Amino acid sequence: MSLKLYYASGACSFVPHTALELAGATFEPSLVKLHRGEQRTPEYLAINPRGQVPVLEDGGEVITQIVAILLHLDAKFPQAHLLPASGVARSRALQTLVWMNNTVHPTFTHVFMPNKFAPDETTQQAVKAHAVQAYRGLLAEIEALAGKASPWLGGEHPGVLDAYALTLLRWGGFAGIDPQTLPQTWALVQRFAALPAVARVVERERLELNVYKA
Amino acid sequence: MSLKLYYASGACSFVPHTALELAGATFEPSLVKLHRGEQRTPEYLAINPRGQVPVLEDGGEVITQIVAILLHLDAKFPQAHLLPASGVARSRALQTLVWMNNTVHPTFTHVFMPNKFAPDETTQQAVKAHAVQAYRGLLAEIEALAGKASPWLGGEHPGVLDAYALTLLRWGGFAGIDPQTLPQTWALVQRFAALPAVARVVERERLELNVYKA
Repeated sequence: MSLKLYYASGACSFVPHTALELAGATFEPSLVKLHRGEQRTPEYLAINPRGQVPVLEDGGEVITQIVAILLHLDAKFPQAHLLPASGVARSRALQTLVWMNNTVHPTFTHVFMPNKFAPDETTQQAVKAHAVQAYRGLLAEIEALAGKASPWLGGEHPGVLDAYALTLLRWGGFAGIDPQTLPQTWALVQRFAALPAVARVVERERLELNVYKA
Repeated sequence: MSLKLYYASGACSFVPHTALELAGATFEPSLVKLHRGEQRTPEYLAINPRGQVPVLEDGGEVITQIVAILLHLDAKFPQAHLLPASGVARSRALQTLVWMNNTVHPTFTHVFMPNKFAPDETTQQAVKAHAVQAYRGLLAEIEALAGKASPWLGGEHPGVLDAYALTLLRWGGFAGIDPQTLPQTWALVQRFAALPAVARVVERERLELNVYKA
């Protein structure tokens, strides 16, 4: 059964993209150019009616939603240790993963696409400024987690939490947050990006880790 | 090992609360009175520093985040079929669960607590009105899922998707959305609430299913 990942450069699809490489999976990466509206073509909407990345195709099965994709990959590639296998470590990792997905990630959406949340330019700018402050606080929570990483956010093995932290810290640069003000996270992210599997994704997506401009 | 659930009436903690009853679990329900700020007491913040419900204690383990709690309960009580056990059905259910949690649920938060997203009364009202419209669209997506329920959202067994749908539809009433305008969801929710296990939760939380006022 063949695996295919639809991803966009620098989007949250980086997380399952990295998971596939960490697992050593054979898969077809398929770039969706969001700036060209490729997620709105009839072909793409036939795959994901919500017009979002990521989408994972596994044989005939289509899976959307990062967390659902990651749980699928974790079950398919247990030897990759994308998440801790069981017990308290697993519960803790899952709650962090879900929190990144339902709280930190949507807060950045308010910074990046305030038009989704408010009707006019003035209101959108107020929502955006509010969200930048909230995002700083959430990255500070990740910084506290990074301070306790041993050596990775999920424990012994690099995995999906590290990939999500990289994405969220990188997005912080677009929100005017210097990653170097979050030194534990920044060190962890650089260490993670240096892993050969992760470096392949960074190169394929042509990412700069630090997009902050003073 | 004893189970204890911290919940608030009508909050999203209804979902794990219902899961525990559907599983036939012996557990201690512990009411957190949000309107009295009990989630901000030092005792509660020692349990969950984010000051949110739900929290599940399982022996010495503390689990926050609905999705993490539900995955824990699903693994602990496989005979309850809180989620489909495997395959495409499971992936599909997980992606719906995660979407309810990261998209539908936070959209309602904009209606209920717009102060979390905007700095002043005028901007908050604009954000709230915008979110009500978005919420209508999201409930319409749930209505389409309810139209295909066979007979429950997860398939053969009543489970966590039905509980989340009940919560989200009920919240719609507070957003001025008449549940009877979503007849498939409303029928499913009423059928679900009539199950003895669910009825126990509805009674313990003293919930009215339809809070819409014309």
